[in-house]
Amino acid sequence: MRAEIISVGTELLLGDIVNTNAQFLARELAQLGFGVYYQTVVGDNPARLEEVVEQAKQRSEVLLLTGGLGPTDDDLTKQTVARLFGDTLVLDEVELEGIRQFFKNRSLPMGENNIKQAMLPKNGKKLLNPNGTAPGAMFKDDDKYAFLMPGPPREMKPMFLNEVRPILLKMQDATIHSINLRTFGIGESDLENRIRPLLMGENPTAALYAETGEVHVRVTARAKTTQQAAALCNELAEKLKQELGDLVYSENGDELEATLVHLLARKSESLATAESCTGGLLSKRITDVPGASEVFGFGACTYTNQMKQKVLGVNPQTLQQHGAVSSQTAAEMAFGIANFAGAQFGVGITGIAGPDGGTPEKPVGLVYVAVCHGSTVAVKKLQLGGRGRQVVRRLATQHALDMVRRMALGLPIEKAGYFEKGTPADLQEV
Amino acid sequence: MRAEIISVGTELLLGDIVNTNAQFLARELAQLGFGVYYQTVVGDNPARLEEVVEQAKQRSEVLLLTGGLGPTDDDLTKQTVARLFGDTLVLDEVELEGIRQFFKNRSLPMGENNIKQAMLPKNGKKLLNPNGTAPGAMFKDDDKYAFLMPGPPREMKPMFLNEVRPILLKMQDATIHSINLRTFGIGESDLENRIRPLLMGENPTAALYAETGEVHVRVTARAKTTQQAAALCNELAEKLKQELGDLVYSENGDELEATLVHLLARKSESLATAESCTGGLLSKRITDVPGASEVFGFGACTYTNQMKQKVLGVNPQTLQQHGAVSSQTAAEMAFGIANFAGAQFGVGITGIAGPDGGTPEKPVGLVYVAVCHGSTVAVKKLQLGGRGRQVVRRLATQHALDMVRRMALGLPIEKAGYFEKGTPADLQEV
Repeated sequence: MRAEIISVGTELLLGDIVNTNAQFLARELAQLGFGVYYQTVVGDNPARLEEVVEQAKQRSEVLLLTGGLGPTDDDLTKQTVARLFGDTLVLDEVELEGIRQFFKNRSLPMGENNIKQAMLPKNGKKLLNPNGTAPGAMFKDDDKYAFLMPGPPREMKPMFLNEVRPILLKMQDATIHSINLRTFGIGESDLENRIRPLLMGENPTAALYAETGEVHVRVTARAKTTQQAAALCNELAEKLKQELGDLVYSENGDELEATLVHLLARKSESLATAESCTGGLLSKRITDVPGASEVFGFGACTYTNQMKQKVLGVNPQTLQQHGAVSSQTAAEMAFGIANFAGAQFGVGITGIAGPDGGTPEKPVGLVYVAVCHGSTVAVKKLQLGGRGRQVVRRLATQHALDMVRRMALGLPIEKAGYFEKGTPADLQEV
Repeated sequence: MRAEIISVGTELLLGDIVNTNAQFLARELAQLGFGVYYQTVVGDNPARLEEVVEQAKQRSEVLLLTGGLGPTDDDLTKQTVARLFGDTLVLDEVELEGIRQFFKNRSLPMGENNIKQAMLPKNGKKLLNPNGTAPGAMFKDDDKYAFLMPGPPREMKPMFLNEVRPILLKMQDATIHSINLRTFGIGESDLENRIRPLLMGENPTAALYAETGEVHVRVTARAKTTQQAAALCNELAEKLKQELGDLVYSENGDELEATLVHLLARKSESLATAESCTGGLLSKRITDVPGASEVFGFGACTYTNQMKQKVLGVNPQTLQQHGAVSSQTAAEMAFGIANFAGAQFGVGITGIAGPDGGTPEKPVGLVYVAVCHGSTVAVKKLQLGGRGRQVVRRLATQHALDMVRRMALGLPIEKAGYFEKGTPADLQEV
């Protein structure tokens, strides 16, 4: 069966945002076994939208539309598609009440045009949106389907997964099973070379997705039943895991921070963080995980030397002799925060995130990450230059999370130096 | 003049990569004053590509194509477009020699199909590619132009800027100017209702873009000269600013955190943050801004009551009487962190980010944000439920940043209670 993706929005035509929705839906449709031969972007213009939808309807059975469901005047997608699918819109009292509540709960005034969002297909189907005020809509004309979803990805993705995907699965008479092996510590090309023979299959498939500082191996199988699909998937995933070993940090969808929080919770151990160049990003990522309070009580963002001394007890002599960006300072930060917070694990991060502040000896992108447990500290020196401030910060926290994970699991940390409390943490000797 | 973007590649249809090329070109075309009403993605299939190019050629004067110039067999873009533009391909000896050299320098074998890359328009024009082996091509048929560029962004972008853009500039006898007014504190519908008459113009135009917790008003004007375009833009922007007043926090592209950091730097004032439910997100956002160290020295992520007492000096009785999530605790956190860090402004954030931990009296999404300066503290009670943990956290930091901005500028903070140090910060009285 054929499907097309139509993205509606002037902000896409003007290049104000990247069309990540199209990628998400394309990947999902490929996994569901739909043939996708066209993607189109069109603005909030009824005539042009009509032209695009009409053409797509002739070519494909399933149309996935995103965008154009908001309350503002230029959002006309629903009306246009309803007409082309021989349907009309009627006021849905339940949705209207929900929108009223939304505004009431927030003590915000509700505009007249918010009512438009509660206009839904008479013959088609409403698609629930628990993450926003605009519900989605399904229209059906003979064997042709159009699914209208909101533009913001955080509303669109859950709506697709919960409301649209089950309908598409039924249409395909197939089930899909996926396992996502998340790896840290190996680059995309290296990973590809290492598992190349396992990437060749047709069903199950394995594909690589590079994210900032990690690579995912997504294994997907299609079969009549869930059990068959899962069995196919597991077989390939096992081979991959054998090849990749402890580079794989999760296979249940957990991100690195969630993997770590759950690991420490299982072990009843706790963690405290001391950050300089990452400025709170590490504690932010840890507390992104619901339930983080079980293992995390305190994070300090010590941006000045004064605060590194006052909160973490970093020796002023250390700062003078080695500088704030040094393995010695990172190590003392880790011990200091663990001690201050009474945590088993302490992390210290110090570096130069850029764009300014670099010197020939300590260039932008130089970051030291230290993780301590008991009286031992492991310190890693990272050279992350040339990739911009946000990427430097992100990568530094990736390394920190993985180092704690490895220490908690008793795994070695590659390219790190190990030191005892009170001794010089001099990475030159490593 | 009209332009369209056509992206060629199966990897886009399968969702293996995000179409960042389309965004780049869309933005460039908008700035050049081209009207772009369609973007299309199509695979490496001659019949479908022909259909798409033919349709685009009927609708628009300029076609920008990316992808499909590689040496592999499925790359047929050049042949297809040449035929549709009444041109043929001939071997370009200079390019062929360049490709030969490329392989020789890298000691790689050159395949027969690499010769295809040196086939270039007989009547059209070759577009140089110093960053890869595939040159681009321009085809011209009467007043219609097609520009074929490679798919990899690091080859496409320089080719566009150096080879294509100069031709387009000559075709366009116009320039574009934009101003982006960023607002906080008003929803999209409200904003639209308030400035509706100003959204109606054709040139300059004003359009709304909703982000999480803020709305942008983008003003764009087209004119013969940059000065004329800027003048048109400024005129409309002034009217908008008059209507929106201090809801507009920046018009130079700065995000809220950058606006605040620069404001405090100008005033030589400093800020310290104490976060509970936001877990470091606020300090992370502040330190996202290069040069944040000028105004920011310390952020504490105090996730437990114990740490709120130890670091911030929050009164144990306060925690017992009012709870950790209360206006009183938020106020004491703000005073405590400002005092601890020796900063002029202190922020305290405490709340329930969810998904668990809510009660009927204190539901998920309840957040108190306090900002102190001198002996005065302003506290805001926010009800942010129903939008997920990450959004609650993001919105809480938005309010915090805006509250500091307002206090630093001497502006009132809507719906906030003001209290003096040492007095009960009881929001019930507001």
